[in-house]
Amino acid sequence: MTSEYLQIVVPVGRMLHSTKRYFTVHFHWTGTKMAALLKQYRERIRTELDRVVDFWLKYSHDEQYGGFFTCIGKDGKIYDELKYVWLQGRQVWMYCRLYRTVPRFHRPEILQAAKSGGVFLQRFARVQASDGPGKCAFCLTRDGRAVKVQRTIFSECFYVMAMDELSRVTGDKEMQSDAESMMDQLVHWVRVDSSGLGRPQLPGDRPVNSMAVPMMLLCLVDQLTEGRAELAEKYRELGDWCVSQILQHVQKDGKAILENVSLEGKELPGCQGRMQNPGHALEAGWFLLQYAKACGAAELQNVAVQKFMEVPFLTGWDKEHGGLFYFLDADGHCPTQLEWNMKLWWPHCEALISFLMAYDHFRDPAMLARFTQVYDYTFTHFPDEEHGEWFGYLSQQGKVVLDFKGGPFKGFFHVPRCLYMCEKMLDHLLTTLES
Amino acid sequence: MTSEYLQIVVPVGRMLHSTKRYFTVHFHWTGTKMAALLKQYRERIRTELDRVVDFWLKYSHDEQYGGFFTCIGKDGKIYDELKYVWLQGRQVWMYCRLYRTVPRFHRPEILQAAKSGGVFLQRFARVQASDGPGKCAFCLTRDGRAVKVQRTIFSECFYVMAMDELSRVTGDKEMQSDAESMMDQLVHWVRVDSSGLGRPQLPGDRPVNSMAVPMMLLCLVDQLTEGRAELAEKYRELGDWCVSQILQHVQKDGKAILENVSLEGKELPGCQGRMQNPGHALEAGWFLLQYAKACGAAELQNVAVQKFMEVPFLTGWDKEHGGLFYFLDADGHCPTQLEWNMKLWWPHCEALISFLMAYDHFRDPAMLARFTQVYDYTFTHFPDEEHGEWFGYLSQQGKVVLDFKGGPFKGFFHVPRCLYMCEKMLDHLLTTLES
Repeated sequence: MTSEYLQIVVPVGRMLHSTKRYFTVHFHWTGTKMAALLKQYRERIRTELDRVVDFWLKYSHDEQYGGFFTCIGKDGKIYDELKYVWLQGRQVWMYCRLYRTVPRFHRPEILQAAKSGGVFLQRFARVQASDGPGKCAFCLTRDGRAVKVQRTIFSECFYVMAMDELSRVTGDKEMQSDAESMMDQLVHWVRVDSSGLGRPQLPGDRPVNSMAVPMMLLCLVDQLTEGRAELAEKYRELGDWCVSQILQHVQKDGKAILENVSLEGKELPGCQGRMQNPGHALEAGWFLLQYAKACGAAELQNVAVQKFMEVPFLTGWDKEHGGLFYFLDADGHCPTQLEWNMKLWWPHCEALISFLMAYDHFRDPAMLARFTQVYDYTFTHFPDEEHGEWFGYLSQQGKVVLDFKGGPFKGFFHVPRCLYMCEKMLDHLLTTLES
Repeated sequence: MTSEYLQIVVPVGRMLHSTKRYFTVHFHWTGTKMAALLKQYRERIRTELDRVVDFWLKYSHDEQYGGFFTCIGKDGKIYDELKYVWLQGRQVWMYCRLYRTVPRFHRPEILQAAKSGGVFLQRFARVQASDGPGKCAFCLTRDGRAVKVQRTIFSECFYVMAMDELSRVTGDKEMQSDAESMMDQLVHWVRVDSSGLGRPQLPGDRPVNSMAVPMMLLCLVDQLTEGRAELAEKYRELGDWCVSQILQHVQKDGKAILENVSLEGKELPGCQGRMQNPGHALEAGWFLLQYAKACGAAELQNVAVQKFMEVPFLTGWDKEHGGLFYFLDADGHCPTQLEWNMKLWWPHCEALISFLMAYDHFRDPAMLARFTQVYDYTFTHFPDEEHGEWFGYLSQQGKVVLDFKGGPFKGFFHVPRCLYMCEKMLDHLLTTLES
């Protein structure tokens, strides 16, 4: 819809590696024409966000036991009643963030749903209450009994996000301190002693710097410190540590972002060491850019864009069928993940946020070109015009192969967060263009 | 190559649900013509088995540390040095079985390789040596340090298979008793007390009869009791128990084999309860038929074929593109496994064994028709004519999407076991046809 007439200057030496239907024409646009285009994007994104919020408000609430159903079929039917804790936490967070920052979502039923999710999580998510806040389950029965516990930190991370954002809306100080004490437990597990996670110590299982860990902690630092000088001070060193840990993943002379490196920031052997996840690297990109903007760290802003956006985009984009691959091997071996060549919704969400944030910050038209390329693929492949919400899992060729709207790893999170952030950024861009 | 001129009587009411290129003509064949066809199958299968054995002999041996590399690329290159214990055990078992029962594989380098794998396993597979034989690791470094331990029984099962078969070849009684004591530990974990597996007891995690468990134990009963009257007596009750546990998976009025049922043999709620794995059910089919033949249990022979072969074949065969799906949902929901629609090598191997065993036993031409249908798909899609061995992972459309020959779950096992068993059965069929 847009690619035919978005024609922008792409500086020589940075020409896009893309299929021929994108950006081969050099052309200067007027501010008015650009504004018209951005307005078009904003309209579509706003409409999508409304539809997505409606879908989850309509189908996901468990009025009987509280919390949210997350296994939701194409047409809204619940196909499994299990409650995944990551997704419970993310939905609470997303509802509260929309309620708190977007006037049209400042609605009582959204707040009410968020509170119900918060109560459910506080009551059921934790599986032990010995010393410290304890582990959270990964998955619960409909009525809140633990089914599975992972030996990682992520359930707890989404618990922190949920509780902190909910406390910002309700003003519940106890809940805020619940979030903070869980955060301190997380930092202890990651930086001091991981034995509380329950992983056996095995002689061949060397410790790894897995990018997900500092990314999640950086995201939580951003969450907890917003508008709070004292906490910003408390977590400043942690934020810097997270950034340094994430930067260790720039490898192969700056030509690859590797998911796993050694604690010393060196390449690891085998598949684990060569694994690339372009969507994840792009998500790290906007986490870093956001952090660098807040601190005014100019060099980090450049690294965020050049290394964590450009590199994964150029390596991860499928030049034959379009879209971002899920996994790749940095040395060109075949990945061992059976789903490596599939096109998932969330890497595209993260790419949209990344390139729009980069464009908003640097006003480099190449970034808008990237955004448009991802936007075109995303909006022609993922949204379900019939029932609303987005499909999550496409074949390499772009055909829907899993048609549910919610599943064990897809909830009310990546799609609405992307649409919400892009709408905000487009608002900002349009304000500056019009001024 | 064969389907054009294999023309057999398919009884009315059992007409094959298959694409039009298969079996629409009714025609009686002479014994001579049938023998020519079966000989053709046997030639191809024998040639394939030789190529597959050569591939693993050439590329998989670790001369420095012992044991086998299993992450082997398309052309034989090692792309990861990790050693997966399931695959170490399976390769030892397969080498020994070939050495012991197939004259052309009674070769010193095969015995030598099996012994090297056995030593590696005995030395490194176990992660703890407290009371009882202890858990085995899932994955080891090249030099044998444990990387990961699963909280299931399968590493130990393949350890038992390896040690028992190796002891049959070498006459090592101590090794045989090592296998037997690990078996007793397994039975204890499954039937008495599972706490040694290290799974936390969680209130929402109800015990499940997962078909893999009685299948594996039945396979081990078969392994340990061959030619040993005393052990046959010892494990008779266990064998019958395994059969009764497997039969609980016939559900939905006999129209589905479900992977997971309750301990009382009832359907479970949600995705877990509706999951079907056609290749796995077909494998259970030949395990049951083999057991029922040995006991002379006529009714079980019928159930094995009608329920565990026909049902998963009819539900699992992709009528559009051919081949067996990996996972299906018994109520027609979309499976949540991202790879549900892929065509994997091993379900096709199990289907070949099943239908040839059923044909060899019942001489029902419909079973030979099934075999031919699977044979045609398998031999036109999986073998790599260029480098030998088989590809393991195809898209729904039948295109190779992961091109390695060995990986974390693909080793020297399903392909050679299938080819070895089919060659044996074709030998037997041809002997009877010619007599």
